[in-house]
This record gives sequence, C-alpha cells and structure tokens, in this order.
Amino acid sequence: MKYTPSLDQLIQALQALPGVGPRSAQRMAFTLLEQKRDQANILAQAMTQALTQIGHCSLCRNFSEGDSLCPTCRSDKRRNSGLLCIVESPADVVAIEQTGQYSGLYFVLMGRLSPLDGIGPEDIGLDLLEQRLQQESINELILATNPTVEGEATAYYIADLAKQHTIKVSRIAHGVPIGGELDHVDGTTLSHSFVGRQAF
Amino acid sequence: MKYTPSLDQLIQALQALPGVGPRSAQRMAFTLLEQKRDQANILAQAMTQALTQIGHCSLCRNFSEGDSLCPTCRSDKRRNSGLLCIVESPADVVAIEQTGQYSGLYFVLMGRLSPLDGIGPEDIGLDLLEQRLQQESINELILATNPTVEGEATAYYIADLAKQHTIKVSRIAHGVPIGGELDHVDGTTLSHSFVGRQAF
Ligand SMILES: [Zn+2]
Ligand SMILES: [Zn+2]
Repeated sequence: MKYTPSLDQLIQALQALPGVGPRSAQRMAFTLLEQKRDQANILAQAMTQALTQIGHCSLCRNFSEGDSLCPTCRSDKRRNSGLLCIVESPADVVAIEQTGQYSGLYFVLMGRLSPLDGIGPEDIGLDLLEQRLQQESINELILATNPTVEGEATAYYIADLAKQHTIKVSRIAHGVPIGGELDHVDGTTLSHSFVGRQAF
Repeated sequence: MKYTPSLDQLIQALQALPGVGPRSAQRMAFTLLEQKRDQANILAQAMTQALTQIGHCSLCRNFSEGDSLCPTCRSDKRRNSGLLCIVESPADVVAIEQTGQYSGLYFVLMGRLSPLDGIGPEDIGLDLLEQRLQQESINELILATNPTVEGEATAYYIADLAKQHTIKVSRIAHGVPIGGELDHVDGTTLSHSFVGRQAF
C-alpha cells in the first residue's frame, strides 16, 4: 500500500477542494502532517464550525450565520435604497461589495437556470424572489448574473418576472467581458459596470 | 465585514495549505459550503483522524499508523536486504516505492541539515540513525537526499557517520537533475538513478 489508511483517506478527501488533484493533495497532506499539525487542527475545526454555523439568509439566500437574516438584509439603509441586485453566488456579492459602489440589497441565486442540468426556477429561489417583488417596495432590480449563455438566460427570465410586477429592471454593463466570470473581474471594471447599467 | 465570522476563520485556516492564498482559499470555502457540504464534513473528519492516528515509525521515522513500527520496517524481506536508503521526506519514499526498483529499508530524515535555520544532526534523527548503524547488519547505505546544496551537505555528513562504522555508502545518481527536488522526478529517471548508484 502506498499510504497508511488515514493518510490515504486524507489525500482522497482533500481532492474535494477545487483545483486539487492527487499530486497536490499528497503535498498538502504531507505538509500538514510534517510541518503544520497545529494549523491542520485549526483548519479541521474551522471547517466543522463553518459547516455547523453557516446557513443561508432567509431573504437573500446569501451565507448567513446565527440569525436567519444576514446583516445586509437587516440594514435600514440597504432596505431604504429600493435597489435589489441579483447575483449568482456569494463570491459575486463579495466582489461587488469591494467596489464600494453599491449599497442596496441582494438576492443570491446560488446558481443559474440550466434546464440541461435540471436546474429550474425554484432551484435558484425564484419563487422566493417573486414573493419579495410582491411584498417589498423595490424601485429597481439590477441584474448582475454572469455574462455567460446561462447567466443571460437567467437574467431574461428574471427580467420577465420583474416586468410582471412593473418593476424597473437594469443589467450591469460596460467591461464585464463576455464569456467571463463576474467574480474574476477587477474592481474598477466592476464599478464601471454598475455606474453604466442600462434598461433591460 | 467581508465574511461572516466562521467563514472568515475558514478562509484564513485554508491558507495553511501549501500554494493556497486568500483568493483560492475563498474559492475553496465557497465551493465547500455551496456545493460540497458532505465532502467537506468527510474532509474535516479525515483531517482530525489523520492528526490523531498518524505518528512516526520509531525505526525509520516515516509516517506510521497504529504500531510503533511501520510495515516496511516490520518486513523480513526488507530487513534481510541489508540495504538502508536515506531520504529527506515521506514523499520521497512514495516516489521511490513507485519505481518498484528498491526493496530495502528506509530512514526518513524529515528534513535536511541546515545550520542557518538551526537544524542540526539530532533534528533530523542522526542520533537514531547512528544507533541503527551500530545495531543492525547493514551492508549498504544508499544516500537519496535531494541534490541541493543542503541535501548534498547532509549526504556528506551521513557518509562520514557510515564510514566510521565501516559501512559501504552509495549515492543515487544519473538523471536526478541538480537543484531539483527528488519527489518531482519521473519514475524512469529515478529507477535509473538507483541502478546506477556509485560509491560515495
Ligand atoms: Zn440576506
Ligand atoms: Zn519504519
């Protein structure tokens, strides 16, 4: 056998991390066991704690801890903005927040429409979004899904929903490269795309 | 705040992994929480288990689980070979085992002599190695430390030890590129370097 049983399991399990294959998993396991046992213990605990503590906000679906509403959804300033920005993932919220250009609310799809993969409207929370469109006073819905085929299709679908509720819809623009991923764009480009958003 | 507290801790802790910076740590944490919660749980458990179960063999210092002697050190065939191969790390043992060319014993330094970093002979177990040279019937010591400045210095130091005990010493040769790392070499090259080992 190449490794001891626990080592083998650790090397297998590390390959759940994105971008980690057998070779880097071995390197990670060996580094942790040879040089970083304390940090490895902290990592194991942090992982368990995150899995236990981190759920989803009942309003925006972003990661939330402790309360059922995240701090963004509890903020009066954010609520009073009348702005609701639709993104695909929590990483997109982080990227947008870093621009400092936006201070409205979010709705995080945790995915995108993808009929081929069996991902329909309810899988990305559009029933919950429709409730919000009915109940909250939203002046403008900003579509910030990724400029990919599926992201665009999702944006069109949501724009239709919003129009049924006669809510103004815009799409972020300018500089987000077509075919790219929103959370890989630099802050300036992303700021620009917020300022230059257009009716959809 | 950019992340929730547990998420922040997880992203920090993931950066203990070699080659993982803030950006890939964020991507890892989000992927685990969004799509791979079961696998993340398995990973946290595998890490805790590995840290609890995996110690070092009392004879060769390689990773060992359960018993104080690893399976290699317990093998009669290996013991009877009279060969003892000195390597810097457990990854080197894995690389050498994969060649299928060697069936002797190992001694794993878990490092290399590095006076500038305060790493002296006892830190790499050379007191234990000397005991073995006295007590066991070793026909040949094969030096397979990395062909770096520190690896070479370590090899010279150990060759001196062995000569004091009138044990034949060889150094693996042929094809391990100078300045490279032993566990990055392909199997053929490494096989070759075992076959072509020379008196040291
Ligand atoms: Zn929220
Ligand atoms: Zn052993």
